[in-house]
Amino acid sequence: MRGAVLHAPGDVRVEQRPDPTIEQPTDAVIRLAATCVCGSDLWPYRGIETVDGPAPMGHEYVGVVEEVGSDVRDIRPGQFVVGSFFASDNTCEICRAGYQSRCVHAELMGAIGTQAEYARIPLADGTLVATPDMPSDDLVPGLLAASDVLGTGWFAAVAGEAGPGKTVAVVGDGAVGLLGVLAAKQLGAERIIAFSRHESRQQLARELGATDVVTTRGDEGVAEVKDLTNGLGAHSVIEAVGTQESMMQAIRATRPGGHVGYVGVSHDVALPGDELFFSGVHLHGGPAPVRRFLPELVDLITTRAIDPGKVFDLELPLDQAAEGYRAMDERRAIKTLLRP
Amino acid sequence: MRGAVLHAPGDVRVEQRPDPTIEQPTDAVIRLAATCVCGSDLWPYRGIETVDGPAPMGHEYVGVVEEVGSDVRDIRPGQFVVGSFFASDNTCEICRAGYQSRCVHAELMGAIGTQAEYARIPLADGTLVATPDMPSDDLVPGLLAASDVLGTGWFAAVAGEAGPGKTVAVVGDGAVGLLGVLAAKQLGAERIIAFSRHESRQQLARELGATDVVTTRGDEGVAEVKDLTNGLGAHSVIEAVGTQESMMQAIRATRPGGHVGYVGVSHDVALPGDELFFSGVHLHGGPAPVRRFLPELVDLITTRAIDPGKVFDLELPLDQAAEGYRAMDERRAIKTLLRP
Repeated sequence: MRGAVLHAPGDVRVEQRPDPTIEQPTDAVIRLAATCVCGSDLWPYRGIETVDGPAPMGHEYVGVVEEVGSDVRDIRPGQFVVGSFFASDNTCEICRAGYQSRCVHAELMGAIGTQAEYARIPLADGTLVATPDMPSDDLVPGLLAASDVLGTGWFAAVAGEAGPGKTVAVVGDGAVGLLGVLAAKQLGAERIIAFSRHESRQQLARELGATDVVTTRGDEGVAEVKDLTNGLGAHSVIEAVGTQESMMQAIRATRPGGHVGYVGVSHDVALPGDELFFSGVHLHGGPAPVRRFLPELVDLITTRAIDPGKVFDLELPLDQAAEGYRAMDERRAIKTLLRP
Repeated sequence: MRGAVLHAPGDVRVEQRPDPTIEQPTDAVIRLAATCVCGSDLWPYRGIETVDGPAPMGHEYVGVVEEVGSDVRDIRPGQFVVGSFFASDNTCEICRAGYQSRCVHAELMGAIGTQAEYARIPLADGTLVATPDMPSDDLVPGLLAASDVLGTGWFAAVAGEAGPGKTVAVVGDGAVGLLGVLAAKQLGAERIIAFSRHESRQQLARELGATDVVTTRGDEGVAEVKDLTNGLGAHSVIEAVGTQESMMQAIRATRPGGHVGYVGVSHDVALPGDELFFSGVHLHGGPAPVRRFLPELVDLITTRAIDPGKVFDLELPLDQAAEGYRAMDERRAIKTLLRP
């Protein structure tokens, strides 16, 4: 099959890879309907994370089940399925508590590489959620978003306890931040403040539910959020970047007793204990347990209550994955969808 | 009146201080029935926090109201009262959300100094909670504990979401940690693991509700907690020390999706973002909003459902405050009660 492989920083090639097969009786093999490039794929692409020899890329996926292993009970060939970037058994104590991304049998889909024609999905019954029927083509981008960026933005909003009566601020205007706005809106937030300096992203943020846009960042941005909230700060802040500056901006923009939901993959961050202590905020985040939310998200998408597919502003054939990475790296695209 | 004053590290003297008076119409003046020395008083006593000229000491207090200002409505002279180490109006948006230690009008009682015969209490109606009647003398230590160490341990247990079915680990065997054990027990925790290397404190921890004692610390202690919890870690961890080692021990002893309630005043702590991110824990803490819990705690103490007064293992007249500090500094005493 054809699949994207990162050879070195900046060097993504779509080339022949071995066809996946059932390796464990709990596996499924799917034919991808769509896959995409994640903001986190840019870390190794930019050489900020080490590239250790040719690496298959991609961890977001929707598609049709081709084949299942002998122990798979609920998932059947022919079903259209969505899964998270972590495979999970969905039965262990950690999964049952809603933390499937830390399942005791978790497997990272990024190591399998879903920017490809086919993919092996471990722990198929625990990992995959089937749509009620074959979705029409225009629903595919939304379902694909559920696989990571929507699930991650949704988790950030839940971790930040966005809800009725709450003012929610969102740090980061990438796909996750933008879908954090959508999630906060859907969860009933009263006011949603998006931090963004890019006009097209500001517009999309407003379309997805932002009531206010703040164009400054750092302490200046924090001061603006305080001005908008009687000097107190937001009840909830979604952090979707992962840098020292963005984390401190999120913590400082939150009122005492408020909640920070952080999902930006942390790079070179050290949180000062005394400032965190006296901030009095709740801090929760990490790799989103997307699987927890998938049944609800699939339902919201297939009933057209939400359209998270809007974050894809570039669609390319899989063979042009390299251009998809470049466009995101240069911030010409928010998020690239790839059609195998 | 007589009151304790810190002149320099190691130099606490009980000397003549001005009698407090009503300065604001919302003030009360109380005659102290008892006060005490806090673990946090040891930071400046040890010179780890700067001592900036002679400083009145103490922020824990119970006593009888002598006089109230003209705007005080609910608190009356003659009442026996308990208050927190932060004065709070208990009406602002932050107080109503349960974060009275970050009240928009918060005043730090430590700046007033309650290791004294009398103390002015700002915002008396919002700060003080009266007992139903004059408590018998043996209830005074418990009520005094509510003023800080019990309220703080209780907050840590609530922030850590201790409750039925939960395994709770407690880092720190000082008065706050020990009363965190009591709080976890009272909140219904199934299993309570106390970290302690001191036999007398281990014994008190067991008396207060600990089911297990771990005598190692750091990563070795974490490994023991994992052994006790199917390799997963505790659901809830109370952190009551405030150092880098104790914070990392607390985070690492918590299972993914679990909760760390941290109340040890943070000193030289920097939390590594990537480890925190991948830990998947909830982190909440800071200066405890003791006032939130005081009505319930006063009720539990006066009905003799709990006896937090057990943490006082040394009682001295106020005039011997210096010996009270020394005994705690040398870990001869867990906590010193002072009788004015």
